[in-house]
Amino acid sequence: MASIDQALPLGFRWASVRAGIKASGRPDVAVAVADKPAAAAAMFTSNQVKAAPLQVDAEHLRATGGYVRAVLVNAGNANCATGAQGLAAARESCTQLATCLGVAAEEVFPSSTGIIGVPLPVDKLTAALPGAVAGLSDSSDAAEAFATAIMTTDTRVKIAQSEVSVGHRPVRIFGCCKGAGMIGPQLIPHATMLVYLFTDLQASPAELQTMLATAVETSFHSISVDGDTSTNDTVLLFASGASGVIYDQAQIGEQQAFRDALGHVCDTLAHAIIDDGEGVTHVVRLLVSGADDDVAAKRVARSVANSPLCKTAWSSADPNWGRILAAAGYAGVRFDPAQVSIHIGGLPVFERGARSAAIDEAAVHRRMLDREYEIAIDLGTGPGVCRFLACDLTVEYVHINADYST
Amino acid sequence: MASIDQALPLGFRWASVRAGIKASGRPDVAVAVADKPAAAAAMFTSNQVKAAPLQVDAEHLRATGGYVRAVLVNAGNANCATGAQGLAAARESCTQLATCLGVAAEEVFPSSTGIIGVPLPVDKLTAALPGAVAGLSDSSDAAEAFATAIMTTDTRVKIAQSEVSVGHRPVRIFGCCKGAGMIGPQLIPHATMLVYLFTDLQASPAELQTMLATAVETSFHSISVDGDTSTNDTVLLFASGASGVIYDQAQIGEQQAFRDALGHVCDTLAHAIIDDGEGVTHVVRLLVSGADDDVAAKRVARSVANSPLCKTAWSSADPNWGRILAAAGYAGVRFDPAQVSIHIGGLPVFERGARSAAIDEAAVHRRMLDREYEIAIDLGTGPGVCRFLACDLTVEYVHINADYST
Repeated sequence: MASIDQALPLGFRWASVRAGIKASGRPDVAVAVADKPAAAAAMFTSNQVKAAPLQVDAEHLRATGGYVRAVLVNAGNANCATGAQGLAAARESCTQLATCLGVAAEEVFPSSTGIIGVPLPVDKLTAALPGAVAGLSDSSDAAEAFATAIMTTDTRVKIAQSEVSVGHRPVRIFGCCKGAGMIGPQLIPHATMLVYLFTDLQASPAELQTMLATAVETSFHSISVDGDTSTNDTVLLFASGASGVIYDQAQIGEQQAFRDALGHVCDTLAHAIIDDGEGVTHVVRLLVSGADDDVAAKRVARSVANSPLCKTAWSSADPNWGRILAAAGYAGVRFDPAQVSIHIGGLPVFERGARSAAIDEAAVHRRMLDREYEIAIDLGTGPGVCRFLACDLTVEYVHINADYST
Repeated sequence: MASIDQALPLGFRWASVRAGIKASGRPDVAVAVADKPAAAAAMFTSNQVKAAPLQVDAEHLRATGGYVRAVLVNAGNANCATGAQGLAAARESCTQLATCLGVAAEEVFPSSTGIIGVPLPVDKLTAALPGAVAGLSDSSDAAEAFATAIMTTDTRVKIAQSEVSVGHRPVRIFGCCKGAGMIGPQLIPHATMLVYLFTDLQASPAELQTMLATAVETSFHSISVDGDTSTNDTVLLFASGASGVIYDQAQIGEQQAFRDALGHVCDTLAHAIIDDGEGVTHVVRLLVSGADDDVAAKRVARSVANSPLCKTAWSSADPNWGRILAAAGYAGVRFDPAQVSIHIGGLPVFERGARSAAIDEAAVHRRMLDREYEIAIDLGTGPGVCRFLACDLTVEYVHINADYST
């Protein structure tokens, strides 16, 4: 289990409480508060169906010009596809937390994850808020409690940290997330990714948005468990400024060091999501090169990552490069099969359009028994490159997601 | 098991033989011959990786202007990703069959299905051709033998027939196909769809191409087992003209009747492929309506049909409309969730943006225990409609495709 072993960013406090929304009775409401209004940048699911809190988040960020005082997360109910009632519930929970904190309701950023289509038990949620506020702390235990309360069927807490020096002063990043999961098997569940990134850098919402978009592209936008894009996916970057380090007054190299650190935190969290994916027994690092451009490379990677035939082959360490080639071929990207080469775990299986003369299937199979390995697909056409994290499809995935009883 | 119970189109003969390409020793080479050069139209996979016979088919159709004398299919080896050697093998097999028949090599239309990436044992194939030619017959048994020899792991033969009257004369259609399957589990297999449609109508290659494209759009382009587009998919429509009925001299209504019959044959075969899909226990008829246009409706249908979360829910008759809504939402199509309604098996589950007040989950679950049922998704926006055949994702699918041992 990950634990917090570096200094946390200054200017934040965290807490969690049991509101009785999760059937398990575990902590299910998480609150994070900035001492002063903190600059924020957020990215939301591209799904046409967006949960109620995501709609409220967008309204609130517009109203405040990108400043947030508090994050309010509940697990156990996604508050999605709940109509006007769901929107009202999300707004009510913000109002109640804002009252407890003495801030404006628009300064609260709500999130929900869990059952879809079931009304949010807003009374339970709001009844728990005074206790959460009373428990706010800047301790490691409090931050870890926040990261734990947002979990649904995640089997482990997902945390990443980094610290960089800017003008000889430390700037810290603390990130946590939850991966795909299922709860309430007799109801209507849905997996959701929630990511919260805290830093004590001082930066504007626009600066944060730019750096967040870059970091997300190569981390959370480059992973797939099953290709099912959630209705609730949210990534929030939240900067208290309490380090005293002002981003736009830092040296170019130090700005880059901060962005690299943010990227590292996002990469670590994205890897943790795949590694803890439903039923996953193998993590596959896809490296697609030689595409016309990076966008084309990512299309090929995503096609391979979501191919049921590739994913089932990986589950049994089957060196089935034909399925990889075929999935690349239907990605909607132009390439010449005669120029394609594929390596699995560093071993050649397909070279320039034909089975590798040096192929050793037994050796490739042994390499694929590792928990994690790389599959490199060189299209041999252009400069486009993509790294993407994929995983296998197992019987356990089907069991987890098909477990329904009347 | 389907059997041939109507008159076959005139002007064709069929045969099959054992060439020893299938490890099982079952018949694995199928030949169909037209008495005279027959107008043909073909459609091939859009996969960037196309098997060698598909490349030869395209060359041959260009060389003859769309006329074919013989179809040569082998099962047990896909002759895909086999480089220059694979192209030479496909050409050699055409030359040998052409010699046996006394026709030009360009008049032969080759197909292969089975293991990908392994050299085609062309000597075995060509050695079997004289026996196949000697066995050619216009009998029902011969046509059924053709349909049987093209199978790989299909559990049943897939045949459809129709007959329409044009100018008081009968015109017949006989179609057969093979669905997804896996063979040679220690090698590199790949599923492939092959469809052959025979008719004794007289029509030009261009007329056939137009009617084939229309029929394929609503049949083979509107199904998915796992979303994995093969490297070998082929649909061939092959018209001997032996009925004496000339398409462009028929009445408009009778032309339409023929196209309807062709569509019916294609629909029947497409349904047979899904019904015999790997590990399938439920066939789901998706009806998407209210999209901006038919293209948008099909994108939504395909997204739902390929969603692992929807497919696993269907395997356990789980009335999980949230997953259906979410999969529609990430199809890349614009719609307003507040206007969406979903019915499962005719029962309301989601109406205009919220859970149906009349929902009866137990009743919906019971309806979903049927082998086949409909899910209707009304986006409530525009006139676009699509019907699409989907299926569930079961543990058996994973077992079939993950069954690898060193």
